[in-house]
Amino acid sequence: MKIIFEPIGYVHSEFKNVKDIPTQSVLASEKIGEIELLDKFKDGLLGLKKGMHIVVLFNFHESKDYKLIQSPCYTNEEKGVFSIRSPFRPNGIGMSIVKIESIRDNILEFKGLDMLDKTPILDIKPYVVSLNPKID
Amino acid sequence: MKIIFEPIGYVHSEFKNVKDIPTQSVLASEKIGEIELLDKFKDGLLGLKKGMHIVVLFNFHESKDYKLIQSPCYTNEEKGVFSIRSPFRPNGIGMSIVKIESIRDNILEFKGLDMLDKTPILDIKPYVVSLNPKID
Repeated sequence: MKIIFEPIGYVHSEFKNVKDIPTQSVLASEKIGEIELLDKFKDGLLGLKKGMHIVVLFNFHESKDYKLIQSPCYTNEEKGVFSIRSPFRPNGIGMSIVKIESIRDNILEFKGLDMLDKTPILDIKPYVVSLNPKID
Repeated sequence: MKIIFEPIGYVHSEFKNVKDIPTQSVLASEKIGEIELLDKFKDGLLGLKKGMHIVVLFNFHESKDYKLIQSPCYTNEEKGVFSIRSPFRPNGIGMSIVKIESIRDNILEFKGLDMLDKTPILDIKPYVVSLNPKID
């Protein structure tokens, strides 16, 4: 079974190479990036505003392969790919939570950039604090 | 440009019809479901354990179309699809945060089921509280 998606837009980023990218968006919380939505999708931004947080789902387009067991940079331990956020995943979907800086027509400017230039965007969802699990 | 994914597994759920599904997993926090991973991916679960929260990305496989502007059930307001969590999206990716109950071989049992039976799973990521944005 194949599931086929098409990008809704692309990222404009100062990070042109994988090695330039911070490992998590909270570590890059001041970096500004832009999502340029395809024109046909721009009406879907209605209701999003400066200051809101959004969940951005994107494609790790430079990660061509995956490993089920990996040793992330912060540990020597071996980890299963589903227990870490590595870009080398069976389905290369990345997730970042970012803050909207501005929306002008089909351009969404945000703070918290941790994506490569030209990253294809798959989806944007509202980040809703009250939907987070209560963790003891 | 097309981005092609293959399910890493499927959900076993008591919800056989869309109308049976709670609208958010926190509203279904006691409902138990299972992800049956394809055998070839089961090693990717290494490091996940009972009590941990995970982000599950899945395909809204019964949502065949989308609308850019929608009126969700909780309001009369018109909303852009990227400002709401509706299943009728340009790329039908759903996201739920659930709690692991058990892992046996390729079966991950979890609490917080809000997915339809046979839902294709795209990815599993660790849910890391410290990566959430600090919201004033």
